Amino acid sequence: MLDYEVFFAHQARGAERSLIRELLKVSRAGKGFISFAGGFPDPVTFPVAELQEVTRELLEGGAALALQYGPTEGDPTLRDELVGWMAKDGIAVDRENVLVTTSSQQGLDVIGKAFLDPGDVVIVELPSYLGGLQVFRAYGAEMIGVPQDDEGMDTRRLAEVLKRLGREGRRPKFIYAVPDFQNPSGVTWTLERRQELLTLAREAGCLVVEDNPYRELRFAGSAPPPIVALDGDRSTIYLSTFSKTLAPGLRIGWIAGPEPVIAQCVTLKQAMDLCSPSFTQAIAAALLRRGDLLRRLPATIDLYRRKREVMLEALQREMPEGVTWTRPEGGLFLWVRLPEDMDSGAMLQQAVAEGVMYVPGQPFHADGSGRNTMRLNFSYPSEDEIRGGIARLAHLVHHARPAAVHTIHRRRTSVSD
Amino acid sequence: MLDYEVFFAHQARGAERSLIRELLKVSRAGKGFISFAGGFPDPVTFPVAELQEVTRELLEGGAALALQYGPTEGDPTLRDELVGWMAKDGIAVDRENVLVTTSSQQGLDVIGKAFLDPGDVVIVELPSYLGGLQVFRAYGAEMIGVPQDDEGMDTRRLAEVLKRLGREGRRPKFIYAVPDFQNPSGVTWTLERRQELLTLAREAGCLVVEDNPYRELRFAGSAPPPIVALDGDRSTIYLSTFSKTLAPGLRIGWIAGPEPVIAQCVTLKQAMDLCSPSFTQAIAAALLRRGDLLRRLPATIDLYRRKREVMLEALQREMPEGVTWTRPEGGLFLWVRLPEDMDSGAMLQQAVAEGVMYVPGQPFHADGSGRNTMRLNFSYPSEDEIRGGIARLAHLVHHARPAAVHTIHRRRTSVSD
Repeated sequence: MLDYEVFFAHQARGAERSLIRELLKVSRAGKGFISFAGGFPDPVTFPVAELQEVTRELLEGGAALALQYGPTEGDPTLRDELVGWMAKDGIAVDRENVLVTTSSQQGLDVIGKAFLDPGDVVIVELPSYLGGLQVFRAYGAEMIGVPQDDEGMDTRRLAEVLKRLGREGRRPKFIYAVPDFQNPSGVTWTLERRQELLTLAREAGCLVVEDNPYRELRFAGSAPPPIVALDGDRSTIYLSTFSKTLAPGLRIGWIAGPEPVIAQCVTLKQAMDLCSPSFTQAIAAALLRRGDLLRRLPATIDLYRRKREVMLEALQREMPEGVTWTRPEGGLFLWVRLPEDMDSGAMLQQAVAEGVMYVPGQPFHADGSGRNTMRLNFSYPSEDEIRGGIARLAHLVHHARPAAVHTIHRRRTSVSD
Repeated sequence: MLDYEVFFAHQARGAERSLIRELLKVSRAGKGFISFAGGFPDPVTFPVAELQEVTRELLEGGAALALQYGPTEGDPTLRDELVGWMAKDGIAVDRENVLVTTSSQQGLDVIGKAFLDPGDVVIVELPSYLGGLQVFRAYGAEMIGVPQDDEGMDTRRLAEVLKRLGREGRRPKFIYAVPDFQNPSGVTWTLERRQELLTLAREAGCLVVEDNPYRELRFAGSAPPPIVALDGDRSTIYLSTFSKTLAPGLRIGWIAGPEPVIAQCVTLKQAMDLCSPSFTQAIAAALLRRGDLLRRLPATIDLYRRKREVMLEALQREMPEGVTWTRPEGGLFLWVRLPEDMDSGAMLQQAVAEGVMYVPGQPFHADGSGRNTMRLNFSYPSEDEIRGGIARLAHLVHHARPAAVHTIHRRRTSVSD
């Protein structure tokens, strides 16, 4: 057989498969296996009846446009609906500011292609969304991590990083932020942090890329505006998706940004896939027009709030002292911090052997830190699975812990919220 | 407003919008406007009734998998169906050799990302598919064009090019071939040319990328096997799509190749979009399983054969001497060669003003030649539109021609077949 490796592009040779994507294959495997690893919505939230109505109407009408090639920018009806969808969050844009993408992940890939040359600097949160890090790495960017606390990115540290870069004559292309119920940590940025980010970005002369796939899934607290809605300078590019509010299988995402940026992204997307599927775009546009997504949202939020509660209760009941976790106000994930001397990556194989899975936290850290952290998903497993899985996990943590703290059995609540 | 240009990646700054994609917007505009520019299938070929049945069944079953995230490799059922679909053409592969892509264009983008570093050499036909050239250019490849004649790529010229590159110590990453009813020319490679290509590629130690979106749409003649089916060395990567046989709006394409290549492509696709839409994949898999695509194919072929005939007759009736064209045995396009001193690009604005559009041939040529050529699509316009549009076009050619040949009104047949 040919040695195909020698033909591979240098940039691509270093690409690593996503641990999560590989784990997902395992997680679909066995009965009784409990996975907290994926970022899957609960399928009961999929608007199946509405999809039946919408696709029937679409196809009864002949669907000549919905089955044909469409404009690279996206279905004009969907783009208009997206303008309205974003307006509810105070984001004021026109159709020309919107590019439909085949998932928000494609949106990130388009952004990477549009902005990043090898060696360019991107500032990311510690931790940050793995799929974002993969894209920036694929385009050869240098990622600089800024720690996160319970209020979002630590903007004091961000200011230091930007100052240091300025002294070195380097300007980041953009700061990448996932401000609402972040994947992986579940942390939401306060209004102050959002404003400080914009001030610092303006001073440094760099853009902001706001990735906001979970915003609609808020269980508690009140919502600060999206960063882009606070940005008077039009320096923020916004990405979102219907993968969590409608269904991931339709792969509907979008980018909203200044017209010159959208125009450049459209040019690049032409060579990437000509256009996103017209059929799924037409379906999404119809669901939005009918108001199905907004109408179904409260039930989805109730479901995930309940599941989060079950997971928080189980963690509190089962986990030994020294283990902490976040209490996210929305989204799909919470974040567990084991004692400093533990390694969630090393523990994973044993976890899988015992029928439970999570995502180790280290890959979410651009600087390689976070070995003692893990991401847990609560949207996909059932309540019983959550209870059972956390018990298995706690048992594992308990027995994997160093002997010194092994005998302490006291339960305690999270310190991070 | 910010100067966003300064943030754009250098590689991306030079990206040009596809003329075709921009023209498509015009072509959808006015009533009475006749476009030969797109590569649109006739919507009457869309299997609307079958899609209704399949989507109803899928959604009645809850569609939990079809609406969820799926494996990056693609829906396993669809991959198995694709194995069967390719087997009818003598392509022997397993599921592990198949990666589903969101359109064949995405397949090309994945291939570009997997193989091309800036400065790498890719050999292309003169002319070649514009979307392929755009991808290779986007990854910084140097494209070397080899002329085409009625039998496919001129392999004598290919041998010379490879010899010259060998002397220079350069090895192309791959040779890009669209061997069946090529877009744009409509030319089909003979069996001999396919075999010679493989021999030359083996000698040069380079891969072959076979892009074959039109193969099923054969009106006449007999089909030589796809290049990949003749390749004992497994040096050929095969791309195809259902955009012409099912519907472009579903954006179902795929790559078939050796496992190490597919594995690398899967890794890269993870960061590009996680996975293609599960919903459209499930629909395509069901249509294939039911045999709908094969069953509907003869009617589609009849329709396009008739339209091609109408266009050929109109060209023969209307075009002045000195104009030649291909008689493709399948596909969606034919290729017109104007007298050497004419410029189809310069003529386009006037054509649009007179209500008819085509794609100038020059952008399909990696070496900038082909100014006197144009691509005409016959699958989308109605028979009346074909007759009317060719009359308008002939009128234009007639009056745009240099005075010397202006008075010659004799009709003649194509010399290129």
